[in-house]
Amino acid sequence: MLLNCTIKKSPEISNTQALMDRVIDHLQELGVGCETIRVVDHDVRFGVSSDEGDGDEWPRILERVLGADILVIGTPIWFGVRSSVCQMVIERLDGTYNTTNDVGQYPLYNKVGGVVVTGNEDGAHDAASNTLFNLSHLGCTIPPNADTYWLGDAGPGPSYIEAGGENHEYTKKTTSWMAHNLVHFARMLAEHPIPPEGNTVPGWDPAHHVG
Amino acid sequence: MLLNCTIKKSPEISNTQALMDRVIDHLQELGVGCETIRVVDHDVRFGVSSDEGDGDEWPRILERVLGADILVIGTPIWFGVRSSVCQMVIERLDGTYNTTNDVGQYPLYNKVGGVVVTGNEDGAHDAASNTLFNLSHLGCTIPPNADTYWLGDAGPGPSYIEAGGENHEYTKKTTSWMAHNLVHFARMLAEHPIPPEGNTVPGWDPAHHVG
Amino acid sequence: MLLNCTIKKSPEISNTQALMDRVIDHLQELGVGCETIRVVDHDVRFGVSSDEGDGDEWPRILERVLGADILVIGTPIWFGVRSSVCQMVIERLDGTYNTTNDVGQYPLYNKVGGVVVTGNEDGAHDAASNTLFNLSHLGCTIPPNADTYWLGDAGPGPSYIEAGGENHEYTKKTTSWMAHNLVHFARMLAEHPIPPEGNTVPGWDPAHHVG
Amino acid sequence: MLLNCTIKKSPEISNTQALMDRVIDHLQELGVGCETIRVVDHDVRFGVSSDEGDGDEWPRILERVLGADILVIGTPIWFGVRSSVCQMVIERLDGTYNTTNDVGQYPLYNKVGGVVVTGNEDGAHDAASNTLFNLSHLGCTIPPNADTYWLGDAGPGPSYIEAGGENHEYTKKTTSWMAHNLVHFARMLAEHPIPPEGNTVPGWDPAHHVG
Repeated sequence: MLLNCTIKKSPEISNTQALMDRVIDHLQELGVGCETIRVVDHDVRFGVSSDEGDGDEWPRILERVLGADILVIGTPIWFGVRSSVCQMVIERLDGTYNTTNDVGQYPLYNKVGGVVVTGNEDGAHDAASNTLFNLSHLGCTIPPNADTYWLGDAGPGPSYIEAGGENHEYTKKTTSWMAHNLVHFARMLAEHPIPPEGNTVPGWDPAHHVG
Repeated sequence: MLLNCTIKKSPEISNTQALMDRVIDHLQELGVGCETIRVVDHDVRFGVSSDEGDGDEWPRILERVLGADILVIGTPIWFGVRSSVCQMVIERLDGTYNTTNDVGQYPLYNKVGGVVVTGNEDGAHDAASNTLFNLSHLGCTIPPNADTYWLGDAGPGPSYIEAGGENHEYTKKTTSWMAHNLVHFARMLAEHPIPPEGNTVPGWDPAHHVG
Repeated sequence: MLLNCTIKKSPEISNTQALMDRVIDHLQELGVGCETIRVVDHDVRFGVSSDEGDGDEWPRILERVLGADILVIGTPIWFGVRSSVCQMVIERLDGTYNTTNDVGQYPLYNKVGGVVVTGNEDGAHDAASNTLFNLSHLGCTIPPNADTYWLGDAGPGPSYIEAGGENHEYTKKTTSWMAHNLVHFARMLAEHPIPPEGNTVPGWDPAHHVG
Repeated sequence: MLLNCTIKKSPEISNTQALMDRVIDHLQELGVGCETIRVVDHDVRFGVSSDEGDGDEWPRILERVLGADILVIGTPIWFGVRSSVCQMVIERLDGTYNTTNDVGQYPLYNKVGGVVVTGNEDGAHDAASNTLFNLSHLGCTIPPNADTYWLGDAGPGPSYIEAGGENHEYTKKTTSWMAHNLVHFARMLAEHPIPPEGNTVPGWDPAHHVG
């Protein structure tokens, strides 16, 4: 499950999607089915609940997220910070704190998180670290080298596609590492889920679980 | 000019507005006229131009920003990061880089920037530093102590209003300092604008300037 | 293996150590042997290699890190950012990129990373996200909820010990979650190491590996 | 007054110094006397007071800082974050909060702050925004475009000097803008100091000032 958090609606070209497609290439080679949602193409509302009502399309996206084993968030950088759409997605995931999985952990437990960042210059570490940290708080496991990014040098300049970023050696390496480790961990956690010991939500009562 | 970047639409209560109102109290005592816009109440589109068309209400907000001497951005914190609405506002200000003031500087030159942050716990330094840095890149001057924030202690908890934040000594002090310094600098820059020497946009040509 | 990155030398009281001791309580209950090093008590040099020579005591610390299954970094916050000593430790870990484990991955692969943060107010998300992200780049796995922190409210104020932080419900919960998940993952990775597929260092040659 | 916060001692080459030297070129052309201190060459101790005793060389550096009108901090980036030496310098400036200038403001009031950042890839926005924000908290004024940085593209690669960064158009432009605006503001504040109204330290008493 990949969420593209570009701020540009289809059919405009998304550089972030172009790099996410390289991740998908690897995931598919490894036998993983992939689905991408370009969030800005949907009517997702600002908020911190899982359903803001009145036509809010987040619940349909959230359903796909909860059904997946791997969650990859792709974001461009604007002014050194992850995109407004990415921040909105993270804010909406706040709603998951109010429910649990079948054993009383946060619903994103046993999912694996990764991040894809593109910008024409600076900000990948900040965008990636915040996003992976947020995902780990929500319950995701972060494997080693769970990020990939492409950036140009200082100042304005061509973006990933125009700059031929798909041939950038460092980004190619990290893209492959990320995909492999996401899959290694998804398979490990499918076979050996995190035991619900010491990490369940206080007050959670299996008898009343309706989740 | 104050932009409240809460993610909650009116008439829901905004804690950020409550702290912004304390800043306004001081500004008004100092003889400064204030206007607040709650961005999420307007149909502002994602994008990086100054007009995304099709009913986009950013141009009207931008016009107010460009007419002001002081720009204060108020933002809540979600997941340790400034709000999606705040990030959207900063992204939209990117469009100002394409124009100049009458002497060839970025349009926000000679304006003074400040920031108001509220959260129930952590993240004020990150939200404030990113936002003030972005404003300084756009042309604003950042006076000493140009931020004020209120936060509760670690973890979930009551927000500014419920916690009686208006009586918090540290926040009261920084609110007053911020307001005074914004006004000191706005008056100083009104009398002594930044000379257009060494800081004009390359290629800017006064003969063809159309504003 | 826990590294306390306070900037205060022994015997001065370290609030960060006090919270780290709560993590240790849980780890020991779970049958994990613990060792803490207070970095500032040792003569660790600035640099990015694994041995800066001339009495540098980092090599001895690094040896302990490499021998451990779990790496927890504890840091105070100063000016909203992790401590200089913490940053120095991360810089020194850069040297590990030049070596691999027996199967060609970075040496910190199959280790589990966590972070403990204390401050009298703001900055825990930034300190924790940067530090966990750096650890994940170096090869560590970051389990869900791999951080714990304590903070007071906005502005100067009492620190963890004086404020009775050991009774703070949120921090107690996250401390327990963190300890349990570090142990769950350390045991999982001991039994099922990350396969060296798609994540080994380019150019690595098992025939010439010298550790 | 420029503080180079490289982690490499003399006579090792400092890329940060190379970009700082371009700032100095501009400042000298504008008639400003410049002094640079490479902090790591001095025996500066970890701490948050202005004198940690026992041969601590920070007091001598602080004296130079307090005597200057402009304070520029230069820092490399390691792991996406400003250097440990830069963080140590900011921590030491904490000590200035305990004193005031002659009119009861923090001692860095009426000084102008700027930042120079170099890295072989990412992290300039984070390093610059944190550092300028800290300086503004300490009392410095931050002019528009008060930062300059050079970065290569994603991943390891040549640094500023080797990459010919001195010919990088964007960095050249921002270096010139920064220098001009630092000087504009230093001159403006020399003629029109910030009035000590609404921004003096609570409890400050001019009769007992020994500052």
